[in-house]
Amino acid sequence: MYIKPCIKELVRIGGQQGRYDYLRLDMNENPGGLPAEFVEAVKKELTPEYLAMYPEESRMKRLLAEYLSREASAGGNAAGGRFTEDNFCLTNGSDMAIRYLYEVFAEPGSAVVTVAPSFEMYRIYAEVFGLRHRPVGMGEDFEIPVGKILDAIQEDTDLVVLLNPNNPIGRPYTDEEFEQIAEKAAQVGALVIVDEAYHYFYPNTFLNKVAEKEHVVVLRTFSKLMSLAGCRMGFMVAAPQIIEYVRHVRPSFEVNTVALKFGEKLLEQPELIGQLQAEAREGKDYLLAALKDQGYETMVQEGNFLFVKPKTAPAREIAGRLEREKKVLVKSYGAPLLKDYLRISTGGKMYMEQFMEAFLEVDA
Amino acid sequence: MYIKPCIKELVRIGGQQGRYDYLRLDMNENPGGLPAEFVEAVKKELTPEYLAMYPEESRMKRLLAEYLSREASAGGNAAGGRFTEDNFCLTNGSDMAIRYLYEVFAEPGSAVVTVAPSFEMYRIYAEVFGLRHRPVGMGEDFEIPVGKILDAIQEDTDLVVLLNPNNPIGRPYTDEEFEQIAEKAAQVGALVIVDEAYHYFYPNTFLNKVAEKEHVVVLRTFSKLMSLAGCRMGFMVAAPQIIEYVRHVRPSFEVNTVALKFGEKLLEQPELIGQLQAEAREGKDYLLAALKDQGYETMVQEGNFLFVKPKTAPAREIAGRLEREKKVLVKSYGAPLLKDYLRISTGGKMYMEQFMEAFLEVDA
Repeated sequence: MYIKPCIKELVRIGGQQGRYDYLRLDMNENPGGLPAEFVEAVKKELTPEYLAMYPEESRMKRLLAEYLSREASAGGNAAGGRFTEDNFCLTNGSDMAIRYLYEVFAEPGSAVVTVAPSFEMYRIYAEVFGLRHRPVGMGEDFEIPVGKILDAIQEDTDLVVLLNPNNPIGRPYTDEEFEQIAEKAAQVGALVIVDEAYHYFYPNTFLNKVAEKEHVVVLRTFSKLMSLAGCRMGFMVAAPQIIEYVRHVRPSFEVNTVALKFGEKLLEQPELIGQLQAEAREGKDYLLAALKDQGYETMVQEGNFLFVKPKTAPAREIAGRLEREKKVLVKSYGAPLLKDYLRISTGGKMYMEQFMEAFLEVDA
Repeated sequence: MYIKPCIKELVRIGGQQGRYDYLRLDMNENPGGLPAEFVEAVKKELTPEYLAMYPEESRMKRLLAEYLSREASAGGNAAGGRFTEDNFCLTNGSDMAIRYLYEVFAEPGSAVVTVAPSFEMYRIYAEVFGLRHRPVGMGEDFEIPVGKILDAIQEDTDLVVLLNPNNPIGRPYTDEEFEQIAEKAAQVGALVIVDEAYHYFYPNTFLNKVAEKEHVVVLRTFSKLMSLAGCRMGFMVAAPQIIEYVRHVRPSFEVNTVALKFGEKLLEQPELIGQLQAEAREGKDYLLAALKDQGYETMVQEGNFLFVKPKTAPAREIAGRLEREKKVLVKSYGAPLLKDYLRISTGGKMYMEQFMEAFLEVDA
């Protein structure tokens, strides 16, 4: 039987299943979620008939176009503030947006330039699609190594991936850094993917660039601030021609009807998005103060996470004990730059208090 | 900028978006849905915290293994009646199962043998993945052209697709037909995809073959009898090695948490599945009798649909008028074999009555 060679050689990936159901507190995401009354109101519309119908995306895309046109205009670039439905493609989580872009716009054997460490799916999909992954290491000062990125973008490069702000290190890109990278990408005919999963925890965006540059795609998600990770909805914003090519490889019905309903209702209540932002900020500020109070060394940048260095044992060991003893999941890293730290996703203050209590008991 | 050549050449596909939101009755699927009290009970568990967490599939796969082991045993083949979690891969609708199988198990340039007319995604994904689509036409007698299928399966063939029962024509495969085709596929090293989307409307299954033959994959969906098309959940049943390869190309989180919750609760109440089957049967019997009563020529085979020949105008015209004038969506076909007929998805009796009323007004 034929098996695609690059698949045959892959080691098992995406093996997170089976880890979560016993957890008390999953600190990899905002553990709180949307306000209960909002969720109840949306659930009223999830009738048996609605669930039985195939999803219909146009309303959601229209609302996104209106909402993000306002956001882009507020960013001071009126030229960029005019989106229509044709600028959007909804995907089953951002993961699938990444996948489709790799599939359509990278020739097998070509190179994908990323900044390391980064979100692991950018590496994994490079393997799946037979691309050469060319990660550019972030310096110890957590500065964006712009010179090295520019060097890495060569004639063989089809994709350049920037996370704004970066994940796991929340360093954002300046406008000047972005422009330099985008220009080099244009010279070699590469597409620039700007992953803004952590937007809303951080105000700046490169959404405006989409209107100026046909080779720039911005990715967003409803999994982070919007607290709908279980519903699986992400989207890309790009020139209509890019969106049209991606639509060719999508299935007819990609995003489920429940995600669409929650997304529509959220965009109709922008004040709720503001409230979620304020809560996220409060939780992060609280946790940071509480850790400093206890004499912990922390690293904080943009995004809904921060790094803390445990006192009594290596980070990996503390992470293991938090999971086993307290059923609290936090992330630790093998990369030299990060190996001494735990990454804590920040959320509502109540959850931050629960985390602190568990953490202080384990790291004692 | 690089654009994958086979994508560049594709004409626009999957263009159904924007068609649905104004409809009163979508006769392409069961328009009724699950019992209201069941839906309400499941919705109680859709808390903000649950929606905010990334999906966790193991419970669903365990329940599927138990449920389908019972189903396979009841089929009289005890050897086939032992499934474990490792036999299952959940996908974002059956569409994605098809896609992953095409992606992993078909070499670009190889052939895909299908029976025509068939579900259109089998053709579309052949184009997306650069495969040669080799459709074998069904005879005017609606018999499965086994001899022609065997001839079409040649050394260049990586995939053979059988819909059991077929869609749009509900012809099922006999055990003997299946065995002949599977043997020829084994000889040339092809994978056999058995799409059982319309199982539960039709009792026989080739699920048992999965345990006997490593080159057989069965696809099922929660979109049809289970009335959860909006939630997007399908799954494949296959040998663990096949499942493992497919997992390599899946994103980490493929199926959303709402689909999982509904699916789990359904499998915990198998009597509800029996009730849905009885309602489907009642609606189909009613519609068939009502059409015959009015002197209509019908074609009925297995599956949740039947064909009817309008009296006063060509099928395509009646379909258009039903949509425009009555907001009722039915399917018509260009294929010579089917061009005189409308395909009506059958559902609960109440909906069949609504359909009959609209149909008689338009076809008068």
